[in-house]
Amino acid sequence: MLIVQKFGGTSVGDIERIRNVARRVAGYKDKGHDLVVVVSAMAGETDRLLSLAQALTPDPDPRELDVLVSTGEQVSVALLAMALKAMGYPAKSYLGHQVQIHTDSLFGRARIVGIDTQRLQADLARGEVVIVAGFQGVTEAGDITTLGRGGSDTTAVALAAALKADLCEIFTDVEGVFTADPHIVSNARKIPRVSYEEMLELASLGAKVLEIRSVGFAMRYGVPLHVRSSFSEEPGTMVVEEDEEMEKVLVSGVTYNRNEARITLYRVPDRPGIAAKLFGALSESGIVVDMILQNVKRDGAYTDLTFTVPRTDYSRAMEIVRQVAEEIGAEGVSGETEIAKVSIVGVGMRTQPGVASKMFETLARYGINIMMISTSEIKISCVIEEKFTELAVRALHDAFGLGEDSHPREEGL
Amino acid sequence: MLIVQKFGGTSVGDIERIRNVARRVAGYKDKGHDLVVVVSAMAGETDRLLSLAQALTPDPDPRELDVLVSTGEQVSVALLAMALKAMGYPAKSYLGHQVQIHTDSLFGRARIVGIDTQRLQADLARGEVVIVAGFQGVTEAGDITTLGRGGSDTTAVALAAALKADLCEIFTDVEGVFTADPHIVSNARKIPRVSYEEMLELASLGAKVLEIRSVGFAMRYGVPLHVRSSFSEEPGTMVVEEDEEMEKVLVSGVTYNRNEARITLYRVPDRPGIAAKLFGALSESGIVVDMILQNVKRDGAYTDLTFTVPRTDYSRAMEIVRQVAEEIGAEGVSGETEIAKVSIVGVGMRTQPGVASKMFETLARYGINIMMISTSEIKISCVIEEKFTELAVRALHDAFGLGEDSHPREEGL
Repeated sequence: MLIVQKFGGTSVGDIERIRNVARRVAGYKDKGHDLVVVVSAMAGETDRLLSLAQALTPDPDPRELDVLVSTGEQVSVALLAMALKAMGYPAKSYLGHQVQIHTDSLFGRARIVGIDTQRLQADLARGEVVIVAGFQGVTEAGDITTLGRGGSDTTAVALAAALKADLCEIFTDVEGVFTADPHIVSNARKIPRVSYEEMLELASLGAKVLEIRSVGFAMRYGVPLHVRSSFSEEPGTMVVEEDEEMEKVLVSGVTYNRNEARITLYRVPDRPGIAAKLFGALSESGIVVDMILQNVKRDGAYTDLTFTVPRTDYSRAMEIVRQVAEEIGAEGVSGETEIAKVSIVGVGMRTQPGVASKMFETLARYGINIMMISTSEIKISCVIEEKFTELAVRALHDAFGLGEDSHPREEGL
Repeated sequence: MLIVQKFGGTSVGDIERIRNVARRVAGYKDKGHDLVVVVSAMAGETDRLLSLAQALTPDPDPRELDVLVSTGEQVSVALLAMALKAMGYPAKSYLGHQVQIHTDSLFGRARIVGIDTQRLQADLARGEVVIVAGFQGVTEAGDITTLGRGGSDTTAVALAAALKADLCEIFTDVEGVFTADPHIVSNARKIPRVSYEEMLELASLGAKVLEIRSVGFAMRYGVPLHVRSSFSEEPGTMVVEEDEEMEKVLVSGVTYNRNEARITLYRVPDRPGIAAKLFGALSESGIVVDMILQNVKRDGAYTDLTFTVPRTDYSRAMEIVRQVAEEIGAEGVSGETEIAKVSIVGVGMRTQPGVASKMFETLARYGINIMMISTSEIKISCVIEEKFTELAVRALHDAFGLGEDSHPREEGL
């Protein structure tokens, strides 16, 4: 099998852990697999580099910042290749510009536009373990780019797609994808198999196991993902194409996100173009709006407009909104940061009714007020007061039977 | 003027010093100069990286070691470019493979075989300060190489040669080239001008101011060098073509080297091929022999053979020599590590006689026994007992009037 493996920063956090990764990779090699290994910077290294830049200037040049932080992964690939060679395994490190991993030139959040595989394939044919620096690429002009936080997952999946690998294993510091955050829900279970779509929703709703872009890539190219712990031999979670077994499960997981803030404009004149004006102004400032709710009043001429933004953008967003509110003649603006978004995700929702009402009933039973609701085919999100987050997650996890051992998803495997 | 400047590891040792370098570079830019700035890794960084590799394996793969240590310069160029841009000066960093600085593939001690200047020249034409990572290059296959310790000097001089720069300034943590080590000789003077050849001898004999390869490069391509302190505005030492003024000076400097050891073979049969056998065996083991002395005995059939090797190679060399001694039927082998080589250097020696005898007389006057002598056109070296090093250096510095204010070299400027 050709396997692409990715080890995160914690997995290569010190010399002893790098040696462990080398041993693990060697074990796969002994079984006859062809291996491409993607590594992140050693835990803490990227932050150390960023703080050097910050000490110099609050607003470092993006091109140079990528030259700086890409050294983190460069150190990791060199050390891992050394470790493998010292153990007698042929290995060779590659940087983004050596592969080459072509990207656009959006420094700090570049997108992969293509990958050359000739050199890697030649090395693989010779039996070498190919070790690739995650998180980095190169522009057409030869400039170094980085893919943004979590970009090493994307590197791994993109390489797996380009090389038509049989499997992409993401080794991380958690055991896999769980039905809920195990720090909050003591009987949360590891999900053995989950569909790409569910994983996309879980990732975008707050589960930190996989970078969302990498899931999208995997889905588009049909790369089977295996998310698992680098500190244990236990299987983790397979992220694969949806199948019938999955549809039998109403809800796969409960997730939450405390990083949003809510803004409301009161009595906005209900005219065409008002929403475009407001959200256009926010988007121009690079603020991404998540949920939007518009309540048309009985009298028809006015409406209340509520939406959420990332909490880190809250003050900037409020400034912009106040200005726009004045221009369009809204009555007032209010904002709130102490909110949380609680979501349930599952492909089973598509075919089985009653999931939404069960969610609302459950929250109501615990006296939790729902401030906003947003749904998609396979997820339902509710904005609630932040202080109820843990309570809501536990209640929903129980209500949908996710903690029970008799849960059908687990039986199916 | 097009100036190539090189700042060593101490000069960019922390964020504040990087800011100082940026200010200094900006000052040159304000005066209308075109600038290419070569930087080393922040002081201590290369050693930190090497110790990571050492913690992993005592014998790290050379290719991967270069991938690892080259990150040191990468961090420096990114930070310096950020600092300049934050001050409003257009600047752009380049790594070895971006320039490109082509080298052979001797990892860890690669030689520059060519430099592409198109991209740099285009940037310079646009008014950008071009910042280049020292010490690194790229092979034809795209592998990262390093030039060995002190390689950033070579990068700077090679860039100056390739770009036909008007001047190459080497900023370092000393004020320039001195008539002797100021730690030993309190009235040592900074030499305002020295010839390439003298500098080559001084560098190879122990003066640590400039990397010897870079001096050779500068001589071959006629690049004027200015060695000066990065912590002061004072002019340092110009290293240039020899001129008449220089010939008036008998001796430019006194230097010493305590890193050698002496080995003697007694009563070696005086047959052709014996020396070839011995020095061939040493050279095959990568041991570089410096001075060689052969005393043919009166009886003609035997000879004593004495030579020096780097002290770090002493035990290995002794092993080899003992073996060869047995094979060729030498009577015995003795070795000594507590020796020092004291040298005087000056282009004036070529035309003015009596320098050697003055050196020997001086050492004799202080009761210092000379164990070996080696001369070239512009230098004389004596091997003495190590404990006399400081005494010998001071005595010679005095004897040749190097500490006097009336020294002709200084008057000539």
